[in-house]
Amino acid sequence: MTNDGSVMTRAEDALPTQQRITDAALTLFAAKGFAATGIREIADAVGITTASLYHYMGTKEDLLVHIMTEGLTRFASAARLAVSDLADPARQLVAMVRVHVATEATQRRMSLVIDNEIRALTKPADVVHLRDAYEDLWRQSISAGVEAGAFHVADPALARLALLEMCNGVAQWFRPGGALTLAEVCDRFSDMSLSLIQARDRDPVEPVSVASLEMRSAEHEIAVVRNAYASFCSPELGVG
Amino acid sequence: MTNDGSVMTRAEDALPTQQRITDAALTLFAAKGFAATGIREIADAVGITTASLYHYMGTKEDLLVHIMTEGLTRFASAARLAVSDLADPARQLVAMVRVHVATEATQRRMSLVIDNEIRALTKPADVVHLRDAYEDLWRQSISAGVEAGAFHVADPALARLALLEMCNGVAQWFRPGGALTLAEVCDRFSDMSLSLIQARDRDPVEPVSVASLEMRSAEHEIAVVRNAYASFCSPELGVG
Repeated sequence: MTNDGSVMTRAEDALPTQQRITDAALTLFAAKGFAATGIREIADAVGITTASLYHYMGTKEDLLVHIMTEGLTRFASAARLAVSDLADPARQLVAMVRVHVATEATQRRMSLVIDNEIRALTKPADVVHLRDAYEDLWRQSISAGVEAGAFHVADPALARLALLEMCNGVAQWFRPGGALTLAEVCDRFSDMSLSLIQARDRDPVEPVSVASLEMRSAEHEIAVVRNAYASFCSPELGVG
Repeated sequence: MTNDGSVMTRAEDALPTQQRITDAALTLFAAKGFAATGIREIADAVGITTASLYHYMGTKEDLLVHIMTEGLTRFASAARLAVSDLADPARQLVAMVRVHVATEATQRRMSLVIDNEIRALTKPADVVHLRDAYEDLWRQSISAGVEAGAFHVADPALARLALLEMCNGVAQWFRPGGALTLAEVCDRFSDMSLSLIQARDRDPVEPVSVASLEMRSAEHEIAVVRNAYASFCSPELGVG
């Protein structure tokens, strides 16, 4: 219910208050930054009092910690689920690139907030730990690929950093209704990642691609991401 | 002169006031964000009054615009200078990757401020135009490489976005005194970029690398970057 007593007709009014608060905070933190956003602005956007906002989420920093903790936990869960039935490092890499790109595109606000606002946390250790746990999934697949002779990159640690950052960038420029669908961006980023890391078949020795790996459609990973964030925050309108 | 009358003994006190203001603003904007930084904090860090700060640089937003405009202009000049004597698209790409990586590492604060604070500008058009002009240099070299049959990437525009973003990330993690020198990071990123874009020699058809291109040392581009920012702001301590 909105605090001006209007009848609930808009779709977002049907969402639980906690998710409406998360959505409003994400929109404001992504657009203006955490420091420039007042707690009253968030309450006003949701249509509740600041006392009620405090009751649900605690302080503004508690709200930021909640967003980052839940966001990163669900991000890592989605990646784990997407690779869970794939034994081959090249297919695992494609699944992780797709999950990462789909998250940046459908959870653009959350991605920007996590990238920009770790500096705003008084105690960043827990959030940094969650981010490191996510990056460990990449470390494991890349390392397995190098050991198996499937990846030929000179510096696996630097390749991981480069790949993660190139996927992070998708939140900066992807907009629905552009020249490419999200699934197409997922697969072109996967092919560029396989090229960067010099993924090769062994017999015959040939570069591999999403097509040569005979992967299922990227719609699979896009759905995994959509499910991971359901009931926590809303996706970008028109994406996914 | 500092306003507490102390004798000038530290090296930074010998810098012109305008550069000391730029350095202080970069440090605070990068650490706390533009919105969370007060004009008085910048003045205090320099040791001048807020009236004197206003005399030199105008408002806080004027100062941000100055930093972004000068920073991006010098960035593009460095890239143009580094490719100016290179006709071959693969060598041009290596030179641009090196300039970008060296800038992210030696001008880390400026890179973070440009990446994060365009949203803080009332009129972002001029700054966005400068960033676009820089990215056009990449567009031209990549396009020339594809047309010449030297690059074999499926989507040149997406490759440009991926490469720029992977280089942007260097500011997030590079620290002097780590396992790799800046020149080594420049060259490993160049090799990964050549792989991503599938750069090939034509006769025989072989993947190219920094080594096979017989490039001059990355110290050349690192010096180009150092000179580009001289007299504007100070490099990160111990880098370059």
